[in-house]
Amino acid sequence: MAVRMKDVAERAGVSSATVSLALAGDPRISQATRLNVERAAREMGYRPHVGARALRTASTRTIGLVVSDVANPFFADLAGAIQRAAATSSHSLVLCNSDEDPERQDEYLLNLLDGRQVDGVIVVPTSAMTPGLHRAGAAGARLVLLDRPIEVTGRDAAARHLRDCPVVRSDPGAALAEVAEWLTALGHRRIGIIAPPLQTQVGRERRDLLVEALVGRGVAHGEISVVEGDFRQDSGATAAIGLMRRTRPPTAIFAADGLMAVGALKGLRQAGLRVPRDVSLVGFDDAPWFDLFDPPLAAVAQPVDAMATAAVDAMLALLAGRPAHGAFPACRVVRRQSCGPAPEFDPRPSPPRRRR
Amino acid sequence: MAVRMKDVAERAGVSSATVSLALAGDPRISQATRLNVERAAREMGYRPHVGARALRTASTRTIGLVVSDVANPFFADLAGAIQRAAATSSHSLVLCNSDEDPERQDEYLLNLLDGRQVDGVIVVPTSAMTPGLHRAGAAGARLVLLDRPIEVTGRDAAARHLRDCPVVRSDPGAALAEVAEWLTALGHRRIGIIAPPLQTQVGRERRDLLVEALVGRGVAHGEISVVEGDFRQDSGATAAIGLMRRTRPPTAIFAADGLMAVGALKGLRQAGLRVPRDVSLVGFDDAPWFDLFDPPLAAVAQPVDAMATAAVDAMLALLAGRPAHGAFPACRVVRRQSCGPAPEFDPRPSPPRRRR
Repeated sequence: MAVRMKDVAERAGVSSATVSLALAGDPRISQATRLNVERAAREMGYRPHVGARALRTASTRTIGLVVSDVANPFFADLAGAIQRAAATSSHSLVLCNSDEDPERQDEYLLNLLDGRQVDGVIVVPTSAMTPGLHRAGAAGARLVLLDRPIEVTGRDAAARHLRDCPVVRSDPGAALAEVAEWLTALGHRRIGIIAPPLQTQVGRERRDLLVEALVGRGVAHGEISVVEGDFRQDSGATAAIGLMRRTRPPTAIFAADGLMAVGALKGLRQAGLRVPRDVSLVGFDDAPWFDLFDPPLAAVAQPVDAMATAAVDAMLALLAGRPAHGAFPACRVVRRQSCGPAPEFDPRPSPPRRRR
Repeated sequence: MAVRMKDVAERAGVSSATVSLALAGDPRISQATRLNVERAAREMGYRPHVGARALRTASTRTIGLVVSDVANPFFADLAGAIQRAAATSSHSLVLCNSDEDPERQDEYLLNLLDGRQVDGVIVVPTSAMTPGLHRAGAAGARLVLLDRPIEVTGRDAAARHLRDCPVVRSDPGAALAEVAEWLTALGHRRIGIIAPPLQTQVGRERRDLLVEALVGRGVAHGEISVVEGDFRQDSGATAAIGLMRRTRPPTAIFAADGLMAVGALKGLRQAGLRVPRDVSLVGFDDAPWFDLFDPPLAAVAQPVDAMATAAVDAMLALLAGRPAHGAFPACRVVRRQSCGPAPEFDPRPSPPRRRR
């Protein structure tokens, strides 16, 4: 005994057409009327058939989100924030986990779009360009690229469309400059970097920005060691141990991802190294429990809420046919006790150096 | 220029009908042929229209998962494991986050089912019975209840259907008995419990099982204090501080959820209390970083992979019309340094007590 649209119309004291327009979010309906209709529909348990509604209004009021690893606390946090941001404009969110697998990402992307299950997709690309992204671009899909931009090659319609997609990601520049300033002020001159996969733009970016900032503060290029991880915890542990086994091990390590930072701290402790006495450690993707670690883990924090709001705003603009903008909110450094003076660092001020 | 089914048929050297049946997973098609067709379809970038496929085969090969808080690391971990378990049988997963809001849960549940976007839904119910669950039951939806059972009232068709839904959750019984044994062996006689909401069955269950096990080991009922949290971190901190401010504070606290345990440790440290010297702490939902905490946090670990596999197996059985079974895999205790002897505990064996 399903509740029909005319039942809702009767309860709300409006016509069935008004109910239909109100529930579709049509701008011709006043907010007061819309809220009144929505309340009546909710109280009566009225459920429009999503498929039918989609055919009628070309809108599902649902947004897809494809993340690369939902078990990564950063993405779990981001997904939660995006769901809440979408809910404030009455959009549902379906979340798919590509598990860092480009084929699975494409599977989800195309199923969501081809099946018209969603109006658009916010996607954290697994890596570079994929056939699925190309096909979504060729179809003119409403896409927002989150966290990781992709390098688009070619000049066809798909490439042009993808280049126009809004990109929302955080700006690590100032934060990484601050990390370089902090570490060099503590006397560190040999630095290890555990980078995300260098095929990803964020991997190269985090590495390059920190290297540049370190070199600009007097660290020799040859004293910076970069090891590539894969965004997973184990790779952080392996990389940290590998760095410390080198002939000239670093005195400070920057682990450029949350799970890899957790792994690095684990690896260092299992190897019997004390943080920060033997080696300092800075992580990424600050989590609400990093301050409980032994020692509390310093980290670069991404602006999760700002990213979530910007991604949803960009998607809503695309859906409404308005100009959609990307965003590039800044990261910040959360200083904690995992960073200390470099071993044998003499904190007395050195005589002023001349410029060469 | 979309790839058509007949293009795939030509490449695979079979008829269009065979392609259709193979991609729908029809058992009349041999595995070799299916793999051959799937490879051809993948190589050519063929995408069946999901909506059309659903109408044709009544299957979307997609499972819905509604969790109550994706930002909770336990659910993020579980969602990742379920996605991987579903992928091994070529099913996609769409994940929705009810954010502990029963209305939002119902919204997702009914949108997924009414819109025929999925073949069935694995749901972590926010709390007790809701109108949405009742409607899904009345419609005979294929549901698996995960982590939290619901108390079904009534004798109508919806209630009968919901009572038959497989329930997959972890069995905390033996683990909580072990926690009680461990704490009492360490001399603890005043115990605080930070319980999940007591309107949830898991909240009452974790409280009752631990209370029973403690009383069975000689702890007086009056020395057990229960405070209710809301599954969020802040509630754990507030509860822990509240417990320690009592006239007779507990010497050990059990925080019956992962985020509440993190909050409890934070609250205790902010209040200047040392764990375990001033108070011992046992958490729940062991996470890969609990061993990095200061002190490393002892916790009851849920069998995430076993739960994920069982939930997907139950759903696949429902979809195939086979008998579907719930599962109740056991939790285990991960002992770490956050538990120590009770203050002023004398570990010398006491004279044997007589039974009264």
